[in-house]
Amino acid sequence: MTPSTNPVALSAPNWPRDAWWVAATTAEVGGAPLQRWLLERPVVLYRGASGQVVALDDRCPHRWAPLSLGAVHGDDIACAYHGFRFGPDGRCTRVPTQAAVPGVARVTSYPVVEAGPFVWVWTGDPALAAAALPPPKLGWAVDPSRVTAAGAMTVACNYLALKENVLDLSHFAFVHANTLAVTDWDRPPTVEKTADEVTYHQHYAAAPLPAHYGIPTGIGTERPVDRHAWGSYVGPGLQTAGVDIRDGENAFALRICHATTPIDAGTCLYWWVFSQDYGHGEGAVVALTARITAAFLEDKAILEATEAMVRRDARGRDYIDLSVACDHAGIEARRRVARLVAAEAPASRAA
Amino acid sequence: MTPSTNPVALSAPNWPRDAWWVAATTAEVGGAPLQRWLLERPVVLYRGASGQVVALDDRCPHRWAPLSLGAVHGDDIACAYHGFRFGPDGRCTRVPTQAAVPGVARVTSYPVVEAGPFVWVWTGDPALAAAALPPPKLGWAVDPSRVTAAGAMTVACNYLALKENVLDLSHFAFVHANTLAVTDWDRPPTVEKTADEVTYHQHYAAAPLPAHYGIPTGIGTERPVDRHAWGSYVGPGLQTAGVDIRDGENAFALRICHATTPIDAGTCLYWWVFSQDYGHGEGAVVALTARITAAFLEDKAILEATEAMVRRDARGRDYIDLSVACDHAGIEARRRVARLVAAEAPASRAA
Amino acid sequence: MTPSTNPVALSAPNWPRDAWWVAATTAEVGGAPLQRWLLERPVVLYRGASGQVVALDDRCPHRWAPLSLGAVHGDDIACAYHGFRFGPDGRCTRVPTQAAVPGVARVTSYPVVEAGPFVWVWTGDPALAAAALPPPKLGWAVDPSRVTAAGAMTVACNYLALKENVLDLSHFAFVHANTLAVTDWDRPPTVEKTADEVTYHQHYAAAPLPAHYGIPTGIGTERPVDRHAWGSYVGPGLQTAGVDIRDGENAFALRICHATTPIDAGTCLYWWVFSQDYGHGEGAVVALTARITAAFLEDKAILEATEAMVRRDARGRDYIDLSVACDHAGIEARRRVARLVAAEAPASRAA
Repeated sequence: MTPSTNPVALSAPNWPRDAWWVAATTAEVGGAPLQRWLLERPVVLYRGASGQVVALDDRCPHRWAPLSLGAVHGDDIACAYHGFRFGPDGRCTRVPTQAAVPGVARVTSYPVVEAGPFVWVWTGDPALAAAALPPPKLGWAVDPSRVTAAGAMTVACNYLALKENVLDLSHFAFVHANTLAVTDWDRPPTVEKTADEVTYHQHYAAAPLPAHYGIPTGIGTERPVDRHAWGSYVGPGLQTAGVDIRDGENAFALRICHATTPIDAGTCLYWWVFSQDYGHGEGAVVALTARITAAFLEDKAILEATEAMVRRDARGRDYIDLSVACDHAGIEARRRVARLVAAEAPASRAA
Repeated sequence: MTPSTNPVALSAPNWPRDAWWVAATTAEVGGAPLQRWLLERPVVLYRGASGQVVALDDRCPHRWAPLSLGAVHGDDIACAYHGFRFGPDGRCTRVPTQAAVPGVARVTSYPVVEAGPFVWVWTGDPALAAAALPPPKLGWAVDPSRVTAAGAMTVACNYLALKENVLDLSHFAFVHANTLAVTDWDRPPTVEKTADEVTYHQHYAAAPLPAHYGIPTGIGTERPVDRHAWGSYVGPGLQTAGVDIRDGENAFALRICHATTPIDAGTCLYWWVFSQDYGHGEGAVVALTARITAAFLEDKAILEATEAMVRRDARGRDYIDLSVACDHAGIEARRRVARLVAAEAPASRAA
Repeated sequence: MTPSTNPVALSAPNWPRDAWWVAATTAEVGGAPLQRWLLERPVVLYRGASGQVVALDDRCPHRWAPLSLGAVHGDDIACAYHGFRFGPDGRCTRVPTQAAVPGVARVTSYPVVEAGPFVWVWTGDPALAAAALPPPKLGWAVDPSRVTAAGAMTVACNYLALKENVLDLSHFAFVHANTLAVTDWDRPPTVEKTADEVTYHQHYAAAPLPAHYGIPTGIGTERPVDRHAWGSYVGPGLQTAGVDIRDGENAFALRICHATTPIDAGTCLYWWVFSQDYGHGEGAVVALTARITAAFLEDKAILEATEAMVRRDARGRDYIDLSVACDHAGIEARRRVARLVAAEAPASRAA
């Protein structure tokens, strides 16, 4: 049997390190150190006196205590155990019991960018970060004129299983029957590939809208309108998506992003933003947040049950791995991620 | 040191797959899918519209979700993730987003038999199931004229350690001092071996009865009577046992079965039935159930403490494995199970 | 990179077996069996009718049940499962269902000594125990004329990480800022090495006292006095320490011991005794106990967070291992323990 490429229950890393990964929302990072596990590494995030976000290896080189237990002093962080301090570049700036600071006393400092709603961290070779495309700005996600809901959860599955989930919406009729039901997604979408992106397109001509589009747009669920749903793989850590509805002269646009960052092979961090240019009104953000949260908890239940079951199954990953036409975009994402991982230099893999 | 044959803290399977194993009681299986881990495999059990019990691999071949999260439609089951349906033979009958169903879209279907109080599943080579002896009917266990108690529990030990527990009752005086005390089991029983069964016999001539026999039979605990206790290994997943008491013209018969099915090397499912042809009366079943449950929780405590301790002990299974005369039947059961496992074809082992 | 000698997140044993290790306080061992995991082995401790403490392998050679579930009969212990009895020398003295006791029916009996507040067990080759130095008497720890506090906790770190913690007190200013603050430990101590001991010395001439010394001695925190703090590695399982304060004609002595015994590579038992010849008065013992307990919970939090983080970190122990001047005594303790382990005969290692 061909080895399965299904990312469920993997034991080895299936992510590139040379990439921008979301580490937190901008609001999460302040003057108190925040520990995050990113790609199997402990990272401490804090915002120093200068206002810049700092991301350091969360492990003191002296006696290995987590720096995130310590405290921020200016732009430095002090270890909670023996008080060694480290600056934004990772170099030790103070050993309390002696004047000399050993030259080897330093921790890895990760390149950090704030863009849109997120703090992004480059976890691989820092030399490559400067040359890489910066993370997308996602301006719509922080545009106050829109109706925007956002949320985050930790999901006990491989990040790529979650990525595939959002690249094939044929599960809406089953998983989300009570929250985001789309019962007319009854055929495979078309898939468009460019060097940078993989995009599925599903076009509905003169079709009634599912309730969660029909009600907030005011179109209702009976009048036939044109609808275009699409979603793009734009890198291992991010997917963007949208729904465009045209009702005669009126156009309605929903914009979505799904950011997924591996904690380890079986767990990931997940952030989502849903933003509409319609449906304003009292309680709109709360209602949208509640609906999306409810729906994503439905995905989480399935993804986690699958991960746990396969990990426990004595056959493990040695099992039939069937894909159908609807899986086209997801399979292409699997391939692109695998190529990125395979192409990565050993030094970056071990970074 | 000779490698120990004690089944405590084993890491590799010590069960044959080509055998009938109890998967559930008949009452447990209805129209809602039931997940059971049997011999390190996830199995989904359900009763279809036809009334037949179906046992399938609990793992969709598409994206590996547990089928037991789904729903029964007629005799089929639909996956909760993307709605793929599978019939009682394991073949996929529907892919919602396309007309063509790939030929490889199928899951293993396990032979199932309902016999007596149990649903039995054949977990090995299905071709061998038809030729094998069917599971025993255990008619007494469902005979409404008897006083019958039954129960089930999951025990965190190897199934064979539990099997040995019920093949040597000399532990009654210690483990069950407050529930099933038998203080005159003070010598090894005789053991009778046939091709199919291993049976211990303990005969008490003109001896007073332990209270749990004396009281429900009405004989009391002082008058000497003849008593014959016996128990038989009748295969890896079942043991039957009995106590026959003769008081002049009057005969009293207790019949017992213990079914044990491995979940994995360190955990098993355990079902028991105790059935008397005496001691009828209001509250008799409740009292018998309470007594046996209390006693088996005493066994469970010892067996689980042993499994956990040895698994944690750095020496593991590399330890003296002493047996005495009372262990004769249990040791013979170890041997027979080991022979079944050794004789099994690799294909069945991997089935 | 040189392999790290940091004892955090070790997977293999880093302790000698041929040594006296604290197993319990004398008060903990009575007529009810007590299970303790010592150096990856289950040991049952009990005080027999003769008053002697017995330490046996907590694992019946018959069906491997923990003997600690059983009961003490005279100087013997009876297994809870089938009633086999074992004497203080580990030999089986009774098999309830037969007259003959097999010669191989025995468990390891560990040499035991009661000294000072502790029960010490020799876990290696018993032949070496008689020739070894006995455990120290620690008479001050049981001297009723002193103000003595004692406590115990299980800490989820390697025993040597805890040992290093008490061999470098420069962490007091950071970890114990609210409990045992010593803000003038701002330079490395001197370190004295003999064949048997490694001792740090920190001398403060004409310096004000930290509050936890100044208040109970009545000297206060402003008047400059001479103070000498010291601590000695006196073997893998014990450290002694002290603070001597001289205020003109008056001398004050604090004596301390820290006993650490590995449960396994990532967990240890920890007992401490703090004893002052000053600060008598109502509530003194309670106040001292509360202060030391609070402080050691601060150490526990750092040590456990470090152990857990490094164990989870994909780089594991492959990380920079920086030491500074303050670590001199701790590093020497690492070396001495490593030499003891390396020198130990394979038979003792496997004992």
